[in-house]
Amino acid sequence: MRAVIPYKKTGAKSRLSPVLSLREREEFVELMLNSVLESLRGAGIEKIDIISPSIYVHEDLRLRVIIDEADLNETLNAYLGKAREPVLIIMADLPLLSATHIREIVATEKDICIVPGKGGGTNLIYIKDPSRFQVRYYGSSFLTHCAIAESEGQSLEVYDSLLASTDIDEPEDLVELLVHGKGPAREYIDRKFNFEISRGRVKLDPV
Amino acid sequence: MRAVIPYKKTGAKSRLSPVLSLREREEFVELMLNSVLESLRGAGIEKIDIISPSIYVHEDLRLRVIIDEADLNETLNAYLGKAREPVLIIMADLPLLSATHIREIVATEKDICIVPGKGGGTNLIYIKDPSRFQVRYYGSSFLTHCAIAESEGQSLEVYDSLLASTDIDEPEDLVELLVHGKGPAREYIDRKFNFEISRGRVKLDPV
Repeated sequence: MRAVIPYKKTGAKSRLSPVLSLREREEFVELMLNSVLESLRGAGIEKIDIISPSIYVHEDLRLRVIIDEADLNETLNAYLGKAREPVLIIMADLPLLSATHIREIVATEKDICIVPGKGGGTNLIYIKDPSRFQVRYYGSSFLTHCAIAESEGQSLEVYDSLLASTDIDEPEDLVELLVHGKGPAREYIDRKFNFEISRGRVKLDPV
Repeated sequence: MRAVIPYKKTGAKSRLSPVLSLREREEFVELMLNSVLESLRGAGIEKIDIISPSIYVHEDLRLRVIIDEADLNETLNAYLGKAREPVLIIMADLPLLSATHIREIVATEKDICIVPGKGGGTNLIYIKDPSRFQVRYYGSSFLTHCAIAESEGQSLEVYDSLLASTDIDEPEDLVELLVHGKGPAREYIDRKFNFEISRGRVKLDPV
């Protein structure tokens, strides 16, 4: 099997711009990517591709970087079309994802295993036979991918994990990283924010 | 073992007031409570207490309703002080929680099993020996409860489930109910809102 990570460093995570500068966002996404890479390695996954819309070099030269300026769906479907082994598509903004989650996901007995993101997205999708599946990200992609699996007669597992489902897109998501995370991505945010505690949910205050 | 559900129907869920009227919120919380009760019954839990700050009558007369106007923590700690068996404290706003989740939570091998809520809250906590634990809800209660367990020398399991961790407090949470839910609570919201699909997370539009 192979893992593929769509990754955009340049101008990343604009929805975090109310709380992090451009430079901070680009540093932070790299730390989250490294966390995902560490979890993949910890799960014994050696073949990892990164798909980036612009030139990108990672210090780990075992990674294959594919530069593709096309739309994410077009790029990924071309990738799936060429794949000759199971593919795990995994987002780069999952700093709470562990090697154990990945091991459990790729051990699915179903044809497809999907991990929803917050707000109807798709954080991970494991596709045993990539010739029989096409992705359609954006919007309510979780429901779309469930429907595609059904229409293709592919059996489906929905993997239920708060930690794997926590993608970091909006300022409130950083709270989850502070509450549940560890490692460099958490430390980066911990240096910049304090908890703002009230009777409701925890919010963030700049340090 | 017993389950206890803190429940406030009158004037419930003020943070949903931008999208639901007072009457709608009171109807909706009752549907969510019924969903939690069904999951508890499905998990074989028969002894269920509801703690309400004001007079409340439920159609299921097997339920014991305890009226207590005191602060939630005070009420629950008095309850734990009197309990002579394991206690599951479970919030009433968890419409994605299933009987399977509950069975797994109360099957923990640890002294305490805790399910975080969004934003650092505590959705469920299972306490095998209630004489050795006190709760402190509000704010980052998840971290507080983890710290209390540690300071009391109680072993702790953190139960990792997106569905069990999804408490419904804010309008965006209703998206999760529409995406992942089923049953009357979901149908109630489905009649009132449409998905608003964009490239980011799904949002809600009034029907």
